[in-house]
Amino acid sequence: MNANSSNSNNPDSNKNSSVSDSSTEASLTNTAAAQSPTSSQGQQMWGGRFSEATDSFVAAFTASVGFDQRFARHDIQGSIAHATMLKECSILSADDVAIIIDGLQQVLSEIEAGEFNWSIALEDVHMNVESRLTDIVGAVGKKLHTGRSRNDQVATDIRLWLREETDNIIALLVRLQSGLLDLAEQHTDTIMPGFTHLQTAQPVSFGHHVMAWFEMLYRDTERLVDARRRINQMPLGSAALAGTTFPIDRTITAKLLGFEGICQNSLDAVSDRDFAIEFTSAASILMMHMSRMSEEIILWMSAQFNFVQIPDRFCTGSSIMPQKKNPDVPELVRGKAARVFGQLMTLLSLMKSQPLAYNKDNQEDKEPLFDCVDTLTGSLLAFADMLPNITPNKENMRAATMKGYATATDLADYLVRRGVAFRDAHEVVGNAVALGIKEGVDLSDLSLAQLQQFSDAIGDDVFEYLTLEGSLAARDHLGGTAPNQVKQAVVNGRMRLKAFA
Amino acid sequence: MNANSSNSNNPDSNKNSSVSDSSTEASLTNTAAAQSPTSSQGQQMWGGRFSEATDSFVAAFTASVGFDQRFARHDIQGSIAHATMLKECSILSADDVAIIIDGLQQVLSEIEAGEFNWSIALEDVHMNVESRLTDIVGAVGKKLHTGRSRNDQVATDIRLWLREETDNIIALLVRLQSGLLDLAEQHTDTIMPGFTHLQTAQPVSFGHHVMAWFEMLYRDTERLVDARRRINQMPLGSAALAGTTFPIDRTITAKLLGFEGICQNSLDAVSDRDFAIEFTSAASILMMHMSRMSEEIILWMSAQFNFVQIPDRFCTGSSIMPQKKNPDVPELVRGKAARVFGQLMTLLSLMKSQPLAYNKDNQEDKEPLFDCVDTLTGSLLAFADMLPNITPNKENMRAATMKGYATATDLADYLVRRGVAFRDAHEVVGNAVALGIKEGVDLSDLSLAQLQQFSDAIGDDVFEYLTLEGSLAARDHLGGTAPNQVKQAVVNGRMRLKAFA
Amino acid sequence: MNANSSNSNNPDSNKNSSVSDSSTEASLTNTAAAQSPTSSQGQQMWGGRFSEATDSFVAAFTASVGFDQRFARHDIQGSIAHATMLKECSILSADDVAIIIDGLQQVLSEIEAGEFNWSIALEDVHMNVESRLTDIVGAVGKKLHTGRSRNDQVATDIRLWLREETDNIIALLVRLQSGLLDLAEQHTDTIMPGFTHLQTAQPVSFGHHVMAWFEMLYRDTERLVDARRRINQMPLGSAALAGTTFPIDRTITAKLLGFEGICQNSLDAVSDRDFAIEFTSAASILMMHMSRMSEEIILWMSAQFNFVQIPDRFCTGSSIMPQKKNPDVPELVRGKAARVFGQLMTLLSLMKSQPLAYNKDNQEDKEPLFDCVDTLTGSLLAFADMLPNITPNKENMRAATMKGYATATDLADYLVRRGVAFRDAHEVVGNAVALGIKEGVDLSDLSLAQLQQFSDAIGDDVFEYLTLEGSLAARDHLGGTAPNQVKQAVVNGRMRLKAFA
Amino acid sequence: MNANSSNSNNPDSNKNSSVSDSSTEASLTNTAAAQSPTSSQGQQMWGGRFSEATDSFVAAFTASVGFDQRFARHDIQGSIAHATMLKECSILSADDVAIIIDGLQQVLSEIEAGEFNWSIALEDVHMNVESRLTDIVGAVGKKLHTGRSRNDQVATDIRLWLREETDNIIALLVRLQSGLLDLAEQHTDTIMPGFTHLQTAQPVSFGHHVMAWFEMLYRDTERLVDARRRINQMPLGSAALAGTTFPIDRTITAKLLGFEGICQNSLDAVSDRDFAIEFTSAASILMMHMSRMSEEIILWMSAQFNFVQIPDRFCTGSSIMPQKKNPDVPELVRGKAARVFGQLMTLLSLMKSQPLAYNKDNQEDKEPLFDCVDTLTGSLLAFADMLPNITPNKENMRAATMKGYATATDLADYLVRRGVAFRDAHEVVGNAVALGIKEGVDLSDLSLAQLQQFSDAIGDDVFEYLTLEGSLAARDHLGGTAPNQVKQAVVNGRMRLKAFA
Repeated sequence: MNANSSNSNNPDSNKNSSVSDSSTEASLTNTAAAQSPTSSQGQQMWGGRFSEATDSFVAAFTASVGFDQRFARHDIQGSIAHATMLKECSILSADDVAIIIDGLQQVLSEIEAGEFNWSIALEDVHMNVESRLTDIVGAVGKKLHTGRSRNDQVATDIRLWLREETDNIIALLVRLQSGLLDLAEQHTDTIMPGFTHLQTAQPVSFGHHVMAWFEMLYRDTERLVDARRRINQMPLGSAALAGTTFPIDRTITAKLLGFEGICQNSLDAVSDRDFAIEFTSAASILMMHMSRMSEEIILWMSAQFNFVQIPDRFCTGSSIMPQKKNPDVPELVRGKAARVFGQLMTLLSLMKSQPLAYNKDNQEDKEPLFDCVDTLTGSLLAFADMLPNITPNKENMRAATMKGYATATDLADYLVRRGVAFRDAHEVVGNAVALGIKEGVDLSDLSLAQLQQFSDAIGDDVFEYLTLEGSLAARDHLGGTAPNQVKQAVVNGRMRLKAFA
Repeated sequence: MNANSSNSNNPDSNKNSSVSDSSTEASLTNTAAAQSPTSSQGQQMWGGRFSEATDSFVAAFTASVGFDQRFARHDIQGSIAHATMLKECSILSADDVAIIIDGLQQVLSEIEAGEFNWSIALEDVHMNVESRLTDIVGAVGKKLHTGRSRNDQVATDIRLWLREETDNIIALLVRLQSGLLDLAEQHTDTIMPGFTHLQTAQPVSFGHHVMAWFEMLYRDTERLVDARRRINQMPLGSAALAGTTFPIDRTITAKLLGFEGICQNSLDAVSDRDFAIEFTSAASILMMHMSRMSEEIILWMSAQFNFVQIPDRFCTGSSIMPQKKNPDVPELVRGKAARVFGQLMTLLSLMKSQPLAYNKDNQEDKEPLFDCVDTLTGSLLAFADMLPNITPNKENMRAATMKGYATATDLADYLVRRGVAFRDAHEVVGNAVALGIKEGVDLSDLSLAQLQQFSDAIGDDVFEYLTLEGSLAARDHLGGTAPNQVKQAVVNGRMRLKAFA
Repeated sequence: MNANSSNSNNPDSNKNSSVSDSSTEASLTNTAAAQSPTSSQGQQMWGGRFSEATDSFVAAFTASVGFDQRFARHDIQGSIAHATMLKECSILSADDVAIIIDGLQQVLSEIEAGEFNWSIALEDVHMNVESRLTDIVGAVGKKLHTGRSRNDQVATDIRLWLREETDNIIALLVRLQSGLLDLAEQHTDTIMPGFTHLQTAQPVSFGHHVMAWFEMLYRDTERLVDARRRINQMPLGSAALAGTTFPIDRTITAKLLGFEGICQNSLDAVSDRDFAIEFTSAASILMMHMSRMSEEIILWMSAQFNFVQIPDRFCTGSSIMPQKKNPDVPELVRGKAARVFGQLMTLLSLMKSQPLAYNKDNQEDKEPLFDCVDTLTGSLLAFADMLPNITPNKENMRAATMKGYATATDLADYLVRRGVAFRDAHEVVGNAVALGIKEGVDLSDLSLAQLQQFSDAIGDDVFEYLTLEGSLAARDHLGGTAPNQVKQAVVNGRMRLKAFA
Repeated sequence: MNANSSNSNNPDSNKNSSVSDSSTEASLTNTAAAQSPTSSQGQQMWGGRFSEATDSFVAAFTASVGFDQRFARHDIQGSIAHATMLKECSILSADDVAIIIDGLQQVLSEIEAGEFNWSIALEDVHMNVESRLTDIVGAVGKKLHTGRSRNDQVATDIRLWLREETDNIIALLVRLQSGLLDLAEQHTDTIMPGFTHLQTAQPVSFGHHVMAWFEMLYRDTERLVDARRRINQMPLGSAALAGTTFPIDRTITAKLLGFEGICQNSLDAVSDRDFAIEFTSAASILMMHMSRMSEEIILWMSAQFNFVQIPDRFCTGSSIMPQKKNPDVPELVRGKAARVFGQLMTLLSLMKSQPLAYNKDNQEDKEPLFDCVDTLTGSLLAFADMLPNITPNKENMRAATMKGYATATDLADYLVRRGVAFRDAHEVVGNAVALGIKEGVDLSDLSLAQLQQFSDAIGDDVFEYLTLEGSLAARDHLGGTAPNQVKQAVVNGRMRLKAFA
């Protein structure tokens, strides 16, 4: 990832704004030295009321430009729409706005070319962009901030950015689900043990198991689609917290920026971060699901299970043990689930007990959200490549199913159909299993006479119900593991997936 | 609450299944004594395969009946639908089903009358109900469990229960929001300071502030409505994990139980708990919002702010300090937000890394979910009664707004309209504020000459823009704080609320 | 547990203070009815300043007596010490104090006999006890509260209670560790595969694995001992927040109550809850460790591993699948780890951003802490009984070790001792393993000629290094898996455990 | 990740290892291109057994060098000690070891000079260092890995690094506490309102309040000292998981590296991360404390409180509102507390349910731990500079104390000393306060006659007890707010702080 990111406009290159050097005194001194020329710049922004320059460590500690430059493209996109609206509402002249937009496009080019000089003294992406704009176009650039504030500006940037990332994530989810449908289709009648309590329970189709993963991911996609609706609301026009005295028209900017709704209250619009928390909670549930799939892959790859192979390219070895082939990718994804849970907890604790409207605490919302998006995207990429490429070891799966008395329930159901009450049938089969364990054989290896000693309702047709194929095929209803049901589920899945296209 | 809950069918009376007695040895002994007659009952359920009775401490440690009896009504509702379906599909006879349904209704009556004897040895609500059913109707009761398992049964119970609780919570939310609309309507032109960084920023309407709360709660309601769709899917028919060999028809049960969809994969249906996590995350965001409102009420009730009164009945005093009137209710709600966050973290950590399908870990999902529902319901009840009854101290609010240079932005905007670029205007006003601080007066108290020394763009019409009313009225666009905008927002709010009726 | 706890003085019977009834309107009405006579009692406590009685729902919502009655014994213990100190300092007369102490002891008897009537209107355990005391001894009882406040009283109660629970938990930990030492001692030369990435890595002694568990628990015990030092500090004497005007001597009460230190600042003493958070974080790490042990037991009990047996009495069966034997206890403990993590997150979020000193939010600290203690105690009881009773299936473990190229590292080390650089040796062995996989045999089954084709440093003594016993015995240094090292570790463990006796 | 990212030795420049580019397809392609030459390097490390090169995305996804290069110095320190031990134990020759150590020192120089080329293909810091070593010294460099594994190597690196960071943090804590002692000393008799429920409770000394902060931080320091003991244990010598077959002597390396103990079990040593979780939980409690101090500073800086000033250099302004002076630093610290809570939750969830020994999930432990250390260090730096420089506005504080009936408790105590039972005295004072509220005056402004109407125990000496100074001075016992007690607490604090020097 980001393998070539040496250029200064890489959003991640300065992710952490806090001091990390263990020789902190030196670090402070260095920072001080580095900042001295820029403190006066800092003063340009809101200096009139202040009698003392910002401490340079404080400037660095409170600056967000190290991470919020990631919004640069969305910030400029928002500014262009804002300027256009100011023109349409006759707040700024058409000429001024044309100059401003040209200037903004030049700034964007510089950023994309990696030629932009970011300054901590200018605090954040907004001031960096505006300061450069004014360098380019002169005093007219100072008019851009008319009728808005950094509070509604940053809220708009986050939403534009998160909307784009959400779309990307949904696309990855659809790709992964398509791959799973293909895999399930190939294995509708591959038999494996179904587990509860990690004990063999009943035979299931491997394709059926894969379709369980599909269902989880499908709900996750739905949740992200729901969250996107609430992300895609426009705060711009709320200004600092109360709206603006200029005669703006927010419907114009909303249309230009593709928002499907407009935040209805300015105080709420600049202080609400629940769209980000909702996204992170949807991400947490999705990562929880991926941790479950990971756990299964890791178990199945152990020598003890030996149920699946994953291609060597998704594994790594050991520096000391030459025989190892480790399932690093699912292990990491399992670990990364914890990481996303932590980001969710950060965001909830962060917003708890904050009075309205904007407080500086909110600046801490960005890095967890970035990390959540990045972790999720990376994990989905890894899964979309890997998961459809796992290969079941059919013989091992079948052998494992044979050994676990997996058809015990089928025997009980057989008895019920012969008129035995279910609870009584359960007792009969329990005794038969106890005999099997004692003799070291499976149910289907017991003789008819042995079986009949527990219940005379057992006839010689019983053995056809004790085969794995018979057991599988018998669960033939919506949601059941019968191969034809799984086939139908794949067909339905392809249809349902179109909703997200 | 529940102070007198000694009757055994109170769902909360045994909320905690773990050992709480500090003399644990004694506790174990007592439990052992209490359980001895029932171990054999435990064996009736799945004893055939076992050579040793369950340890009595283990029976108590693993039993869920202490808390899942809360599902009793939903469990019986589900069983009646299941029995009806078995009849329609000719799996059970009409006569048998009639007897079973009569029996179930008697069990329900006994539970509702508090006359039911719950048994830990029978593990959970399902076995307690079924065991009593068999006592009443005899052996035919044992047929009820045909074609289902406790795994799909409990999954169905939770969803029926949570659907009902969600509806109740949405109704409380609507009541609270209605109350806020009324409050906002009364105070569209009550002026208070709007804060950012808890520093006076700009004047806002108190009604506008209340409408910010409305907006937060509105999104929370939307999220619960979205979550309800995913709650309201039927797992019944998935049996233990793979479906059943009986020719069931799941559409019949779904219709009888009012589910709007059917879980499409049996493995997923019995192991999925993400509907509960999604609910808890929506609850967490809602509680986060209520913690923010609480924080504001607590601040505003302090002697230093003195912005609002809440009726004495929502406050408590001090045992030692006779002068105290403490805002206990918002303080508790603020604290309870943390509680719900913890339940969310429990559920996410719980499900992480679990292989399919059902594992006993999942039993730990119930108490956090119950506590989340109860905490949320209690907090909403408290808020729905209290919040619409707060009374603003208009004079104090107004006086506070006068003192904080709250119209500084209006002066800057005035200059911009006179042709000064915004950034330059900001500098001019910063200097004017510095003078005001030095002189100890507000901007509107400076003379025209004093103001003009900073910019000759200032005319004698400036003072009309420095009044609070002028400032408020000027923010006259969708989402702004101008009183007529707030009035319109209230009207719209009443319309929008109908979506949840 | 606590299944029969219908008597009202059971600390758990009312664990949840929030509204749980789905018919909330009814609940409010009922509560109101129930409370009407007691509101006046509530007024007795702090009513002078109030013009309106507390809302009855609010009384119930804010009352803590439902859960804090669990402190009754410690509350009375603290009151007796406080009264004694008041006498020693001549603040109260010896006669008054004698009467008070007699009365308190009678209250304690009533509580222990289950004959005490708890009242929600009296809010909390402190007022319930004091009110009953005054009933018994008359007006002199009102003197007990001289020089203290509920704020320092509850802080003292929690610490006395938590100190006792911590001692109980440490004792359980010691019992569990002793059991593990015995188990390890029996199996110093039982061979099993050591895993990394759940792939077979190297042979280890089963006793060595058990000793890894011992080490984890040992550190957990140390952490609890460290936490206990900070729990065992006395807040009593801090009064409401600033100390008292009476000439108290806190060293007297500290000595009477067995505290090892006195909180040095009254504001801090009544608002600090970090001792509880520290306890909960130590509990979380301990539960994390138990979740890891649980995971291993669950894996090892699966048909695929089949490494251990746990006695039937710690397992349960299935209502539908007669063949199942499920490891419910470790599954539940694994799930309960998540629960404790949630309580930790609750406590941290709860205390975040609270200004000094006491706020009502703090009332929400009790239930998470109770639940943490109960969950931990129950889990330790279950483990202390179960874990030392697991039986390894030696043959299966050995067979699994044979199959996984577990001695590959030994071959590499052999080559290094023959002068091959480690990295080169690793490459040689990698090639040998690849051949083994191709041929379907283990390293020790390859011929000398086959091995020598990869390196001529291999001699015919190589095979003694490829045996499992040879591999195990060779790791013969402090901390290594050689059986004699494990034996020594057991001996040391017994010595080290004495530190906690 | 970010393999070419400008200055390679900046530990933070590559903090995020996951995908951040929204055009993920392109990113994959680029990564693939960048990695192709290095995949063969990856194969050198553990390629013998593999038939397929690692997927280049997987190589990037699983590599840790992007963040673990932060350990470079500690890794080399550990390697030098390891090599020295190998020589002392005659496992390597003195000549070889001399060459290796010289080479390692050259590698260190290159890293410190920023001239080192980090490679993702080499996965982690260990392989990068070793690979460069072999470049420099030739084949003898390959001998360094004798008798160790990356598993014990990374565990050693983390501990060495965290020990150093912990010492740095403790030093910052001591500096902050010293500053608080100085501040408290200056203000032992500066009077402010003490709050409970954010309502005025009783007068306290501002110095007393500052000493409450000191106490919190003191316990935090103790916790870090306790955690350091468990951090400072040596895992080196555990090799991959079972120890090594070479005759190593771990006491030599432990002594060389300054460890105070040796991990007693190899399986535990390579998989234990509880020392990191314990550190993070101590950090969470500390950040929770700093969030409380932050909350107070923010409240006190509001126009409504106006209790303190903090120097301009710790504040920032607003881009739109020229009058603002925002307390950014405490707001950010309050927000950063949430961030650390999230890291704690990540680490706990991460380790939950992991079977022994090392799993790749553990790689995810580093970034949360780094972020925790960096956030804590930055926040402490900010506080150590800012907090001792706050200036109380004595007049405002005093005026606020006068208004809140803060001496009501003193009046009650006065009555008790006159023989009135406390509960009765409370009622009397409640009535007096109610009169004061009605008349709009404080207690000390009521006439003797007015007071006596509530109790004839009131004499004309009552007014000396109703002054703020009288109230303060009367709380004259250990832990009380009397100025001479606060003076003594400062003296004791200076002594106690020496324990951490």
